[in-house]
Amino acid sequence: MVKTLPRSAKVIIVGGGIVGCSVAYHLARAGLDGILLCSEAEIRYFSGFRTLFWQSPTRPWFMFLPVDGKPVAIIPEIGAALMRQTWVQDIRTWAAPHPEDDGISLLHDLLQPFAARTGRIGLLKGHETGLRMPLGDYERLMAGLPGLRSEDATGIIRALRMVKSSAEINKLEHICAIGSRTFAAVPEFTHAGQPLNETFRAFRREALLQGADDVPYLVGAAGQGGYIDVISPPGPQPLQKGDILMMDTGATFDGYFCDFDRNWAIGHADNLSRRAYDVLWRATEAGLEGATAGATCRDLFNAMRKVIAEMDSSGGDVGRLGHGLGMQLTEWPSHAAFDATVLQKNMVQTLEPSLSYGTGRMMVHEENIVVGNGRARLLSTRAAPELPVI
Amino acid sequence: MVKTLPRSAKVIIVGGGIVGCSVAYHLARAGLDGILLCSEAEIRYFSGFRTLFWQSPTRPWFMFLPVDGKPVAIIPEIGAALMRQTWVQDIRTWAAPHPEDDGISLLHDLLQPFAARTGRIGLLKGHETGLRMPLGDYERLMAGLPGLRSEDATGIIRALRMVKSSAEINKLEHICAIGSRTFAAVPEFTHAGQPLNETFRAFRREALLQGADDVPYLVGAAGQGGYIDVISPPGPQPLQKGDILMMDTGATFDGYFCDFDRNWAIGHADNLSRRAYDVLWRATEAGLEGATAGATCRDLFNAMRKVIAEMDSSGGDVGRLGHGLGMQLTEWPSHAAFDATVLQKNMVQTLEPSLSYGTGRMMVHEENIVVGNGRARLLSTRAAPELPVI
Repeated sequence: MVKTLPRSAKVIIVGGGIVGCSVAYHLARAGLDGILLCSEAEIRYFSGFRTLFWQSPTRPWFMFLPVDGKPVAIIPEIGAALMRQTWVQDIRTWAAPHPEDDGISLLHDLLQPFAARTGRIGLLKGHETGLRMPLGDYERLMAGLPGLRSEDATGIIRALRMVKSSAEINKLEHICAIGSRTFAAVPEFTHAGQPLNETFRAFRREALLQGADDVPYLVGAAGQGGYIDVISPPGPQPLQKGDILMMDTGATFDGYFCDFDRNWAIGHADNLSRRAYDVLWRATEAGLEGATAGATCRDLFNAMRKVIAEMDSSGGDVGRLGHGLGMQLTEWPSHAAFDATVLQKNMVQTLEPSLSYGTGRMMVHEENIVVGNGRARLLSTRAAPELPVI
Repeated sequence: MVKTLPRSAKVIIVGGGIVGCSVAYHLARAGLDGILLCSEAEIRYFSGFRTLFWQSPTRPWFMFLPVDGKPVAIIPEIGAALMRQTWVQDIRTWAAPHPEDDGISLLHDLLQPFAARTGRIGLLKGHETGLRMPLGDYERLMAGLPGLRSEDATGIIRALRMVKSSAEINKLEHICAIGSRTFAAVPEFTHAGQPLNETFRAFRREALLQGADDVPYLVGAAGQGGYIDVISPPGPQPLQKGDILMMDTGATFDGYFCDFDRNWAIGHADNLSRRAYDVLWRATEAGLEGATAGATCRDLFNAMRKVIAEMDSSGGDVGRLGHGLGMQLTEWPSHAAFDATVLQKNMVQTLEPSLSYGTGRMMVHEENIVVGNGRARLLSTRAAPELPVI
């Protein structure tokens, strides 16, 4: 599927493949002169530029997509060689770091013509975004362009990124398969008496062996008759018989994430945890049925909540029952009561039902899916229908 | 070393240990009513709150350090149990995600008394910072507090974080030792014919085996007679005899990074690369001598540049010859001509001399050090004085 952009007459590279992507059309409809991006996922999405160098907070990176004309990359000199391998031709660089002018005068020159005619540019200002440049530099830039208005363009980017290309789905399917094989191997390297942080190390090593580029995200917990907290780093306490163990991983391949979890009982499973597992397994089934093109995220949330309510009507503290997935560990939308986003074919998402039970225990299940017509297609190998015992 | 804060009468937990930390003193001197933090490293630095959950961009997290009184954490409900394990007592939560009010009304209530008396709060607005909350939410928050002025407090945080406590230095020494053992093992798992991305996977697996919690950062390159680019992800092309291979890693232990690299020749080393290696090895020696309390980063930069100029007077495109190191892969200061920061005892830094040579080739060396009186103390095991051949 190759399309040219309506007005910039340039295709967009997404996920390593060339796909149509009508950002210019959306900008025109919104009356924006262009959109200024400074975040890793967005610059990679529109250029194909991929580097771990973003982990250093030192240097800002910018890309401007005009409603008319070709995109412009304004980046540190160290990135020029790599950016020249992308389809972006207009690459403007400076010797970074340069605290007094880290790309700001280049941005000023680029945006000045729009400011001169009291133009409007879009920025990511909305939910699940941040400003990856010094706030002081942003304030100085805007103060120097008094005619320019900056408006939230999150909706435009969100609408494009939420629906995945086939090239993106292939990468996501690949990393989900790696994640599934890694989870399948957990009983081989996990045993009672093993410190939890060693279980985590072994998991990361196995995921790399299975073909992951990296395992940036791995959280989880273990506790007698259930775990209590799902965001702490693992400690040295050994796994014990009667523990419920959960690991939730975001492993990557070619810049795309899987994000799902698995639960196990160590030695033997208590009845309450077995019941919680069964409820969440069936809540996920309801999610698989409900995650269909045309339904809303709220519908999907309600379908899962209805099953969860058999055991827990409180709602828990995770705040949602799944989310989008792709270049980032979590992306829009949210499977939550507040989110009326209509599901579309080729959205890739997580189903993540959770519940509280017993005395302060919680359990979380998670699968990764592609939305289509009818029941969602699983990218992760479905969890066992009963709580597995190691 | 335990001190109380001058005005808030509360010690600060840094890097898992309790150390003195006079943020309230600095706030008072700057005439600020407090400082509002929303970034992972800063919230962890002042609270001890550590979680990988920050990798999801969905939820903002906030901490307010008042000039008088106790700190306040304003965080998603999912983090409350973990935050209660820290010394922070005033924890205010909301059910996140909640796009219409992701902590903003809680922040408004907290800051309203300062706004009412046209107060001033500090924010990180300076070099090497970003705004980890939606810009639209920030704009709305400030618009709702018209009396409040927000000012850049980067200098205060930077001054505190640059000098490491002994607890922090212990963690950094530990992860640097893990990195050194991993690099020492590279000849065992690396060979001509191996795809570069497999070399990278093997490196990550080895680092985990050696005790790293994770290897979030691993970049590098290989090329005949020298490499060209140091920020690309590794491809499937096999290592060949005559290649110069470089790997640069940021591995972590308990939330602290090492950041250093090593170079090897595959099969045999060409003379020009051997010479580049020798120049950079001696530039690092000059850096070890020059990185002493009382010298400036500029002095240190010049000491290394003088040696590098034997082979390359251009300056390269990395933009600096090292930087601070700690909770982040790169921290202030920069060893660069623009940085007049005076080195102090217990700053932890990288020495990272680089040069261009041959036809578009480059080479980078890197070591990790602690600044003291006299020659710097190495945390990484010093690279071999001659280019090693695998």
